[in-house]
Amino acid sequence: MNDTTWKTGITQIKPNEVRLRGYRIDELMGNITFSQAIFLALNGELPDSNVSRLLDAILVSSIDHGATPPSALAARTAASTGAQLNAAVAAGVLSINKYHGGAIFDCMGVIQEGLQRVAESEKSISRVAAEMVSEFKAIKKRIAGIGHRIHTNDPRTVKLFSLAEELGVAGDGVAMLKALKQAIADTGKDLPINVDGAIAALLIDLDMPHELANAFFIMARVPGLVAHVVEEQTTQRPMRRIHPTHHGYDGPKARSLED
Amino acid sequence: MNDTTWKTGITQIKPNEVRLRGYRIDELMGNITFSQAIFLALNGELPDSNVSRLLDAILVSSIDHGATPPSALAARTAASTGAQLNAAVAAGVLSINKYHGGAIFDCMGVIQEGLQRVAESEKSISRVAAEMVSEFKAIKKRIAGIGHRIHTNDPRTVKLFSLAEELGVAGDGVAMLKALKQAIADTGKDLPINVDGAIAALLIDLDMPHELANAFFIMARVPGLVAHVVEEQTTQRPMRRIHPTHHGYDGPKARSLED
Amino acid sequence: MNDTTWKTGITQIKPNEVRLRGYRIDELMGNITFSQAIFLALNGELPDSNVSRLLDAILVSSIDHGATPPSALAARTAASTGAQLNAAVAAGVLSINKYHGGAIFDCMGVIQEGLQRVAESEKSISRVAAEMVSEFKAIKKRIAGIGHRIHTNDPRTVKLFSLAEELGVAGDGVAMLKALKQAIADTGKDLPINVDGAIAALLIDLDMPHELANAFFIMARVPGLVAHVVEEQTTQRPMRRIHPTHHGYDGPKARSLED
Amino acid sequence: MNDTTWKTGITQIKPNEVRLRGYRIDELMGNITFSQAIFLALNGELPDSNVSRLLDAILVSSIDHGATPPSALAARTAASTGAQLNAAVAAGVLSINKYHGGAIFDCMGVIQEGLQRVAESEKSISRVAAEMVSEFKAIKKRIAGIGHRIHTNDPRTVKLFSLAEELGVAGDGVAMLKALKQAIADTGKDLPINVDGAIAALLIDLDMPHELANAFFIMARVPGLVAHVVEEQTTQRPMRRIHPTHHGYDGPKARSLED
Repeated sequence: MNDTTWKTGITQIKPNEVRLRGYRIDELMGNITFSQAIFLALNGELPDSNVSRLLDAILVSSIDHGATPPSALAARTAASTGAQLNAAVAAGVLSINKYHGGAIFDCMGVIQEGLQRVAESEKSISRVAAEMVSEFKAIKKRIAGIGHRIHTNDPRTVKLFSLAEELGVAGDGVAMLKALKQAIADTGKDLPINVDGAIAALLIDLDMPHELANAFFIMARVPGLVAHVVEEQTTQRPMRRIHPTHHGYDGPKARSLED
Repeated sequence: MNDTTWKTGITQIKPNEVRLRGYRIDELMGNITFSQAIFLALNGELPDSNVSRLLDAILVSSIDHGATPPSALAARTAASTGAQLNAAVAAGVLSINKYHGGAIFDCMGVIQEGLQRVAESEKSISRVAAEMVSEFKAIKKRIAGIGHRIHTNDPRTVKLFSLAEELGVAGDGVAMLKALKQAIADTGKDLPINVDGAIAALLIDLDMPHELANAFFIMARVPGLVAHVVEEQTTQRPMRRIHPTHHGYDGPKARSLED
Repeated sequence: MNDTTWKTGITQIKPNEVRLRGYRIDELMGNITFSQAIFLALNGELPDSNVSRLLDAILVSSIDHGATPPSALAARTAASTGAQLNAAVAAGVLSINKYHGGAIFDCMGVIQEGLQRVAESEKSISRVAAEMVSEFKAIKKRIAGIGHRIHTNDPRTVKLFSLAEELGVAGDGVAMLKALKQAIADTGKDLPINVDGAIAALLIDLDMPHELANAFFIMARVPGLVAHVVEEQTTQRPMRRIHPTHHGYDGPKARSLED
Repeated sequence: MNDTTWKTGITQIKPNEVRLRGYRIDELMGNITFSQAIFLALNGELPDSNVSRLLDAILVSSIDHGATPPSALAARTAASTGAQLNAAVAAGVLSINKYHGGAIFDCMGVIQEGLQRVAESEKSISRVAAEMVSEFKAIKKRIAGIGHRIHTNDPRTVKLFSLAEELGVAGDGVAMLKALKQAIADTGKDLPINVDGAIAALLIDLDMPHELANAFFIMARVPGLVAHVVEEQTTQRPMRRIHPTHHGYDGPKARSLED
């Protein structure tokens, strides 16, 4: 009964009129970027220009990470059997979970916990960070968002944090995560903040709800998955064995926007 | 054997260096938009500023179309059972096919066929369009990209075409589709070009390969699906019956960027 | 390095020889049923004939529950857009979660907790059941596996339990769940054990590991999802609005195996 | 309007009564096997005992083919990232397509085409087979269902065909496929009929509709995928690199039902 009349606050459709969160979609088109529309769709309000630029940087940072991540391999595996584009992309999206992309969610939780302890005590951020690091050490757990298989200094993190500073967006989230990294360094381990961690800190400073954590990784990675599926289906033979790491790069040579 | 060494041309990963199609990702971050990165990932080259603006408009146009489309309903249905975000989004993506989003692919095929006939004959675009419309009529088939369930004048099409004109991107693809619409009107039926048709025409004028047709719809719609999944899980009770059409809008009031 | 040599204990493939858990597949074919092969694949050993018959009953019990459950609706929604069979089935499988099918997992947990309390104390099953029911009541939570939207006496439960008795498979799992139902009845609420609860109790009496809980629901339901996808694509028009409850039955008339 | 009242002929639900294709599900439970219920769900009628035994053999034959097939690799890849069981199984199902499992559909088409030519001409099955083989050769295409990467004499095919003879189910479908294999042999190539081909021939002799071709492969393989997902999550570490072929078998030793 009541089941059949329900409310949604995302989009309103009338004949010849489509409104996203109140704005006519044809007014938005040409006036805002896709990133701004994403923020509007998820958050209900348009971001200002600083937040917009940071959002673009976040989404660009995670658009692809080569053919080795499980999401790319699952999408290529499905594509290799003749799956349609959407089905192969879906197989990739199904491989974005706790251990791949999920660090954003987990790291947001750690940062929130830290900031809450700061708020509820008279302790400093660095004091709380040191406590948490020793607690994690005691239960032999890693802190999500810190450490990387390949990168000792994740270039995406460096850029996200410098941009966030420049744009005035960096706040307690970034401070907390940097303090955690420092507290780990103080125990003798020099681990980088990885891109998932950096995104987690920024999502907190952007007041994004925790349940959207992985959404940004998923949205950012879908175009990368599309690129892998199309490359697999246009350049490789069906049903080949896809080795997860023995592959090389044959794309455009190293170049710069300044060229 | 050869199976274990293969090539990919999308992304190159080295310690502390990630390059997308040759560009350092940390150089791209802060300097290009997500739409531009999408174009780079799929096409291998950066778009110019006119193409970038049109791409944003295309992606914004398709970010959501309310709770009625099958992709939103499938995503909400999965979400309602307690699916994780990525799994619910995947269920939505699996519902983007020939009859939902697929009109972009089909319409690109019709336009390409028309332009090929023009190229191979001395006939005009409008002449070829008239021929094709009568051929479709003879086999009682609709031309994909023309006609809409709700909109008699799809506002997204109007805006995409005016932007494409303004930006100098509109070409033979747009001309061919407009000619087909006109040829249908000449038979007495006034049908609008829908947003899928408009995107198809623009993808042709942007020289996008046919196999990427539905990729744009999928990439654009994923953030909309995320919004539906989050709304379902945060505002509705689990396992409710989701009526496909008896729903109302309770989001922000109608407003304008000028407000 | 070690990553590239790993072990699997399910199937061994040699030229002209396929062995499932040690048995030649061509020896199994013709000699065992599909249910027995499922048990062998998951458990590593063949079930005896009593367990086999119960397994068939469990799988038959959950093969379909009409067009209303979310898994059927999601599969039909995807199918309606032109999805391929496997993609539409996958959309259905993605809608089997905590609130749909997940009661098997949750109920197994409750029963295990109860049996552990019995083992660790000198209390009787009914005493522990009464304690647990009042604990659940105190935190206003329902016990998974008890209660049903439609059935006041789930016919599938009745049959599963009578078969399990007859075959000598019913044990402490069934006893614990019946005690919980009774303890609820003693508080004045007469709720049936539903089919998910009955399966949970039997999986415990069959010593199935907890992580396989939902596997049985998924495996049982896939053929039902196939039937819905095929019916949708062969009898309905594409992109129709699929009402979740306003549908009727037009299949074979009520009949009996004795006819 | 009419959209909201629609018909389904699979299952009828009333309070305390669930009927599958007209039969009370609690009457079916204990009296029929899962395979028989699958046939009933898909076909609308119960199979006789010979057909039932063949169905079991078909489903058992395809329950698993080790860790190398793309469906197992995709399911394990998703599982390795922490996907829930249903999502990992869905990723596997999404990898069952034209080049993996799809041979059943394609081979059914070839056999049907052959039998139609026989019916419409006065030619023998072997004559038509020879014609088709030379036609395929002329366009350099392989006939689906004949040939295998590993097996020179697929043991599953041998058993399916001998069972089908014994049970009196083998008919023109089997004869046509055997004639095609012979016609290929006559050109000097000794290729085996693989299990997909054997299933295709039997589905034709069982009068199964073409659109159900891949359904049998999907239904049969789901339990195998479950076994791989559970094995991956219980014996391997998350996010390992999964090599597609460098793996060994460490399950039960070779054994026989006669032991």
